[in-house]
Amino acid sequence: MAKKKIGVKTSQKRKSKIHRKLGKAPGTITYVGSREVSKSKVDILEYNSDFFEAHIPGNIEQIVAHKDIPTCSWVNIIGLTDEVFIEKIGKQFGLNPLILEDTVNIHQRPKVDEYDGYIFGVFKMLYIDESNALVGEHIALVLLENCVLLFQEMEEDVFNGVRNRIENNLGHVRNMKSDYLFFALLDAIIDNYFEVLEYINHKIEILEEEVYENPTNDVAQRIQQLKKEVLKIRKWIYPVKELVGRLIDSENTLITKDTKLFLKDAEDHAVEINENLQIYREMSMSLMEMYMTNISNKMNEVMKVLTIMASIFIPLTFIAGIYGMNFDNMPELHTQNGYFVVLGIMVLLFIGMLIYFKNKRWL
Amino acid sequence: MAKKKIGVKTSQKRKSKIHRKLGKAPGTITYVGSREVSKSKVDILEYNSDFFEAHIPGNIEQIVAHKDIPTCSWVNIIGLTDEVFIEKIGKQFGLNPLILEDTVNIHQRPKVDEYDGYIFGVFKMLYIDESNALVGEHIALVLLENCVLLFQEMEEDVFNGVRNRIENNLGHVRNMKSDYLFFALLDAIIDNYFEVLEYINHKIEILEEEVYENPTNDVAQRIQQLKKEVLKIRKWIYPVKELVGRLIDSENTLITKDTKLFLKDAEDHAVEINENLQIYREMSMSLMEMYMTNISNKMNEVMKVLTIMASIFIPLTFIAGIYGMNFDNMPELHTQNGYFVVLGIMVLLFIGMLIYFKNKRWL
Amino acid sequence: MAKKKIGVKTSQKRKSKIHRKLGKAPGTITYVGSREVSKSKVDILEYNSDFFEAHIPGNIEQIVAHKDIPTCSWVNIIGLTDEVFIEKIGKQFGLNPLILEDTVNIHQRPKVDEYDGYIFGVFKMLYIDESNALVGEHIALVLLENCVLLFQEMEEDVFNGVRNRIENNLGHVRNMKSDYLFFALLDAIIDNYFEVLEYINHKIEILEEEVYENPTNDVAQRIQQLKKEVLKIRKWIYPVKELVGRLIDSENTLITKDTKLFLKDAEDHAVEINENLQIYREMSMSLMEMYMTNISNKMNEVMKVLTIMASIFIPLTFIAGIYGMNFDNMPELHTQNGYFVVLGIMVLLFIGMLIYFKNKRWL
Amino acid sequence: MAKKKIGVKTSQKRKSKIHRKLGKAPGTITYVGSREVSKSKVDILEYNSDFFEAHIPGNIEQIVAHKDIPTCSWVNIIGLTDEVFIEKIGKQFGLNPLILEDTVNIHQRPKVDEYDGYIFGVFKMLYIDESNALVGEHIALVLLENCVLLFQEMEEDVFNGVRNRIENNLGHVRNMKSDYLFFALLDAIIDNYFEVLEYINHKIEILEEEVYENPTNDVAQRIQQLKKEVLKIRKWIYPVKELVGRLIDSENTLITKDTKLFLKDAEDHAVEINENLQIYREMSMSLMEMYMTNISNKMNEVMKVLTIMASIFIPLTFIAGIYGMNFDNMPELHTQNGYFVVLGIMVLLFIGMLIYFKNKRWL
Amino acid sequence: MAKKKIGVKTSQKRKSKIHRKLGKAPGTITYVGSREVSKSKVDILEYNSDFFEAHIPGNIEQIVAHKDIPTCSWVNIIGLTDEVFIEKIGKQFGLNPLILEDTVNIHQRPKVDEYDGYIFGVFKMLYIDESNALVGEHIALVLLENCVLLFQEMEEDVFNGVRNRIENNLGHVRNMKSDYLFFALLDAIIDNYFEVLEYINHKIEILEEEVYENPTNDVAQRIQQLKKEVLKIRKWIYPVKELVGRLIDSENTLITKDTKLFLKDAEDHAVEINENLQIYREMSMSLMEMYMTNISNKMNEVMKVLTIMASIFIPLTFIAGIYGMNFDNMPELHTQNGYFVVLGIMVLLFIGMLIYFKNKRWL
Repeated sequence: MAKKKIGVKTSQKRKSKIHRKLGKAPGTITYVGSREVSKSKVDILEYNSDFFEAHIPGNIEQIVAHKDIPTCSWVNIIGLTDEVFIEKIGKQFGLNPLILEDTVNIHQRPKVDEYDGYIFGVFKMLYIDESNALVGEHIALVLLENCVLLFQEMEEDVFNGVRNRIENNLGHVRNMKSDYLFFALLDAIIDNYFEVLEYINHKIEILEEEVYENPTNDVAQRIQQLKKEVLKIRKWIYPVKELVGRLIDSENTLITKDTKLFLKDAEDHAVEINENLQIYREMSMSLMEMYMTNISNKMNEVMKVLTIMASIFIPLTFIAGIYGMNFDNMPELHTQNGYFVVLGIMVLLFIGMLIYFKNKRWL
Repeated sequence: MAKKKIGVKTSQKRKSKIHRKLGKAPGTITYVGSREVSKSKVDILEYNSDFFEAHIPGNIEQIVAHKDIPTCSWVNIIGLTDEVFIEKIGKQFGLNPLILEDTVNIHQRPKVDEYDGYIFGVFKMLYIDESNALVGEHIALVLLENCVLLFQEMEEDVFNGVRNRIENNLGHVRNMKSDYLFFALLDAIIDNYFEVLEYINHKIEILEEEVYENPTNDVAQRIQQLKKEVLKIRKWIYPVKELVGRLIDSENTLITKDTKLFLKDAEDHAVEINENLQIYREMSMSLMEMYMTNISNKMNEVMKVLTIMASIFIPLTFIAGIYGMNFDNMPELHTQNGYFVVLGIMVLLFIGMLIYFKNKRWL
Repeated sequence: MAKKKIGVKTSQKRKSKIHRKLGKAPGTITYVGSREVSKSKVDILEYNSDFFEAHIPGNIEQIVAHKDIPTCSWVNIIGLTDEVFIEKIGKQFGLNPLILEDTVNIHQRPKVDEYDGYIFGVFKMLYIDESNALVGEHIALVLLENCVLLFQEMEEDVFNGVRNRIENNLGHVRNMKSDYLFFALLDAIIDNYFEVLEYINHKIEILEEEVYENPTNDVAQRIQQLKKEVLKIRKWIYPVKELVGRLIDSENTLITKDTKLFLKDAEDHAVEINENLQIYREMSMSLMEMYMTNISNKMNEVMKVLTIMASIFIPLTFIAGIYGMNFDNMPELHTQNGYFVVLGIMVLLFIGMLIYFKNKRWL
Repeated sequence: MAKKKIGVKTSQKRKSKIHRKLGKAPGTITYVGSREVSKSKVDILEYNSDFFEAHIPGNIEQIVAHKDIPTCSWVNIIGLTDEVFIEKIGKQFGLNPLILEDTVNIHQRPKVDEYDGYIFGVFKMLYIDESNALVGEHIALVLLENCVLLFQEMEEDVFNGVRNRIENNLGHVRNMKSDYLFFALLDAIIDNYFEVLEYINHKIEILEEEVYENPTNDVAQRIQQLKKEVLKIRKWIYPVKELVGRLIDSENTLITKDTKLFLKDAEDHAVEINENLQIYREMSMSLMEMYMTNISNKMNEVMKVLTIMASIFIPLTFIAGIYGMNFDNMPELHTQNGYFVVLGIMVLLFIGMLIYFKNKRWL
Repeated sequence: MAKKKIGVKTSQKRKSKIHRKLGKAPGTITYVGSREVSKSKVDILEYNSDFFEAHIPGNIEQIVAHKDIPTCSWVNIIGLTDEVFIEKIGKQFGLNPLILEDTVNIHQRPKVDEYDGYIFGVFKMLYIDESNALVGEHIALVLLENCVLLFQEMEEDVFNGVRNRIENNLGHVRNMKSDYLFFALLDAIIDNYFEVLEYINHKIEILEEEVYENPTNDVAQRIQQLKKEVLKIRKWIYPVKELVGRLIDSENTLITKDTKLFLKDAEDHAVEINENLQIYREMSMSLMEMYMTNISNKMNEVMKVLTIMASIFIPLTFIAGIYGMNFDNMPELHTQNGYFVVLGIMVLLFIGMLIYFKNKRWL
């Protein structure tokens, strides 16, 4: 059934979370996604305005070293199932256990928290994969003085543009500090939301066409699923605008004034995304209304066919019935042209009915 | 009828409240639940970082003693029908009569009040019992300097995780003060709301399936009951987010800065719960819409069957009727093959109709 | 018609107000209810912690005297048609003419105004009378230093509990000042709103049952009337929460800090009432939706009966029609068992149809 | 068609405005109503506590003189088409051209602006004329030190009560300054909104009755028109509450503290009007819902008649059809009582059907 | 199909934007409209109170020169596809690259940003072109000390009134500084929104008529399209009110107090436009409701015809069927007047039915 394919890939794991986490102490670092433990992979991009290097560190010490190197580093940790490793990283970078909990909790809603010496953010990275399904991947970002930690669930991401700009020294990224990198990653996530909106828009357009042309029961189900999908996406996307706004208003010295100008731009995009989501929501509700209208119209058409057929032939059958009666004394039956007169009357009645329905615009 | 089983266990007792309480002075301590008076039970957990003891006190003095002992105590009072006992406890701990009234008033909506020397909170503890019914139990919490008073209606609760962490010295609870215990209990209540959301989600999924497959009248009733249930749960859960926020913003010295970090986490959960509740509300409204759509579709199908049957056979019957007439002069009747010609015409008409309805996609 | 009985007793008098008041100067004291002038009655309860007396004053001077007596007095003026008398009282107590206008204007919405030396409030006292109808009675309260003036339209009221507590020295009322009396009266009004909610709830439950069992046209009308009634009650009850809040925040010395604690409790109740009203509103809207669903279901059932009957018998009638034709050459007619074969075919068709509809779950 | 009579008299002139005004400089004084230029009429009421005079000034100088006379003057300018005249008045009284533009722009939404030395307000005066139609007349008020300018479109107005109070020295108006006159005029406008609410209420009641008794297509149209009318009235009335509130909060010395008390009363009325408008809006939406319900009920009734007729007679006709067949060997035909037995069976079937439908409560 | 013509001309280009822009660095100046690169055209209006000159500059230097000339200049750049040219202009005028990005991004939602030395705004200029289609043109405005830069997509615009007022020295524009020009352009854009509202209003009126007279499926589609169009227009128009308000509250010295008075007027208009949009939105939703009602009414009419025809003729046919039976012993058949009696009964039944349906008001 189409119904089974709804939603977004992470949407069915809440249950496991609850049963596994209930009763644990707050601050316990527990990965709550679908569990196939595997070692996290790490790769690091180190750069400043005239230097660039990408490498895969051999051990944790090599990772943590980047905390104090004056060049800017992007530490990318892929895979959130290896809780022990993530806890170690967290300790070495001096992060609060509560944020490590949020890092591996893939159901955490988007948030931004400021701590002494670092800023922590959780977002949903949404993209459309090759099979044209919407994927919601959990992303955690930590902004430190010289370094950005990026935790992501899977290897696919939306950051190739940023990588490219760093490698080839395009745009401002190589000339600015880690806060700009933080912005650039966030901006890439937000920009990709437009693609998700496209995906929703496309679905709406297809359904719209089907509603007009072939409003089957299945279409109604798919409209309902779309409405659910929009509700879920909204839950992930909606808070982003406010979070970016909070970063802009923050007095934390980690974020420079220059970067705030760029963040303002990102906030603009987030506002536009929210507005569009709202429009898509109303459009998906209109779809349902339109569906109901079409069903009613179809029913009307069915009823008209029935009414026309019945209204024309029932009286005619009645006339035939009269002359099918077996009374001894029925003078008409014995006239020479009675049969043809009756046939003539029937034809006239038939034509009269047609004209009547024509006038009513039912034909 | 399924209708009778709606709602949540406490929902039918408002009436008794009104008739019993109207006219009493404010501040009168009157239990308003379903009345089967029974002595309250008390048990106490006393602990600090290297000490732990659970005991059942023999008399009130033994309970009140814990107010001044420097170790942290969790005084758990089970059963709210014994008003005299609760009034005594209240007096000994120096609590305002108004809060004692709220303690035993199981219809009190969630609230938090700060007083000199203690903080008082009322919450609904929601859980699913063995018979898979949703239970809403009235909980009152009092945070004092070295001690937390927990008043609960029945023996079942959601605090076994907390008890376990205290006994086995897991997490932070043994190393922190009574405010952390207060948080831990509140956190357990909030965490359990996720289970209630699951329960609602599960109901929605079942109804969704039935709406598509077998939209009987009974399904419509159950959808309406679900909507009511969500409204009632929302009434209990919705205020919690704001109340936790108020604790965080409080300047009361009873709550330390460390605990506030944890409360912030709990607030995050409360926000998420509220968002999900909102989504479930919209989904339950969509269910009804979907139900109506399915009813319309069924009707349409019924009408099509009727129209097809009538449209095919009424004209054929009419033709048979013509040749059933008894006119003396009906030349066709006396031809050799008249009967077979008419049968042939009928078959052609029948096939023509089938093709017509096929083209209209009614078949 | 049931329609005529809607609403609440005062709801049809607006017209008279308009035509009588338009053009009068603001501050003119004009009673606007259904006019049957009658003298106002006054009775007074005077008390302090160890003294209590109830008497009916002989003249206005005896009433006004209570303004300056240090004991606390509750001056109860019943009947608002005697404008001259009320104006006199107002002058003697030094009240602003504008508030006297509000006192006798029974359409005034709830309000609280603070003046130098007194606080003025207008509320709707709602109760269910013996004939089980909802009554909305206009109440004006004036809090003075040592005295509370209570203006009410009719003799029935909801203050017997307060009278009893004063007479028998129950609760705090005898030990506190006039501000507590003011609170106690307001609290009695608010507490009675719960009874009104019960009344609404009861109506909803009855309609719910009827919607499921017998959704006649009359039920739809009564649902609409219920919705109107809830709208009107909401207009009277909704502002109360905010007004009580304003009293709590007031810096007027007339209201002591102790009384404010009690007012806070009353505010809690007002919040709960507003929440419940909101829930009842949504429930009454659901009722209408449910009604529509049931109507659709009934229609569906009707259509099924028609379709089954027509689909089974129309083809059978057609077959009978064929063999009722009068062609000379119809070989089947002359076989020995033709009739029985045709009857057999008809029975098979009949059974086939039944199975078909059984499979479609229409039977 | 009834449709053409909707709305309110000024509602069809927007188009002309646009085509006439587009491209003109802001501040250009252009009358935008339906244009039949005619000279404005002016009359003046001059008064203080012991003096009163009404006169019609001969020229502009006589008008402007009132600006500096210490007695209070009410300058009433009737007719807004004479732009030249109004511009002259404006200049002489030292008014900003922008407010003169608003004065003659009869589409200007309600507003209040404060300038040095005067306060300017635009309102809609709504009343029901003799032909029982709702009239919306554009009103501009200017409050100066000793004088109020009142601009109005037509001669009819709602100020006769105020005129009467001035002439006959009723109420406070003669003893107070121009700000009280300003209030009194505004109060008269607001008080008249109650009459408009009555008018709407009356329309709702009539439609309600028709919805129940005779839900024709025309009724649906009139409900829609009512909804539109309420939307338009709301646009004019809704802002008034806030504007009065702004006058109350104003620190302008033109408005005395005493007058503010009266304005507060007017604000109360505005709040009530807005609440009622909201209620009428919801009621008009309920009307449509009720209409749909009644249509469904009618349809249901129609279907029942059809189903009963068809279900009873189609099987009977089938039986008659069987015995109308012409098989040679049909033993029943030749029995003595076959005919009567079949008739008996038919009667039994008929009665059985009636009982069946009776049980289903369709009869 | 009408469906294809929806919306507004720019609405289908989002896709291209996404695929072209994703991955580019923020601040990259990329035109995202439908790409047919063409050189931008520039023309300049230079004026002060006694001087006026219009010319087309030969090169960029001539354009930039106007930055420092004390006379006021309106630099009008038409065509946004020539990114290189626009980047040059931007650099020469010292504009931030981020605002140049917004200048050429025709999907940018309305915004106002203040920078040191200039104010930047993006708006949608909406107008109805000759083919009666709604056009949404992207407009960027930069206010500098002595000069306003106006970027527009196409040559058509709504500024001819402003041009005329400058040329012929009408209104205030020649006597004031560049901020007034900025206002005048913005005011022209806002004033034109009224025309768009007219356009929507006209569409609503046409659809309203069609809904009543001929509610075809196509009308339903057009109503849905109208709803979408209103949603989209709202997205462009709605933010303007707030943006103008921000300009009024701005402390930037570029905007003088005098101009703020005019901006206040423009804000008033924006408020009115938003209110009207809201009304049109509700009216378009009512249209759909009305459509559904009309469909139901039509269905009702169809059903009535069917029911009347079937209810009259089915019983009559049954009677005819009885006397068509071939029993040997049917005494009525052999009476002299049996046939005529039966015919008489049929006529009576027919008339009785007609009276019955007449009484039910179905005829």
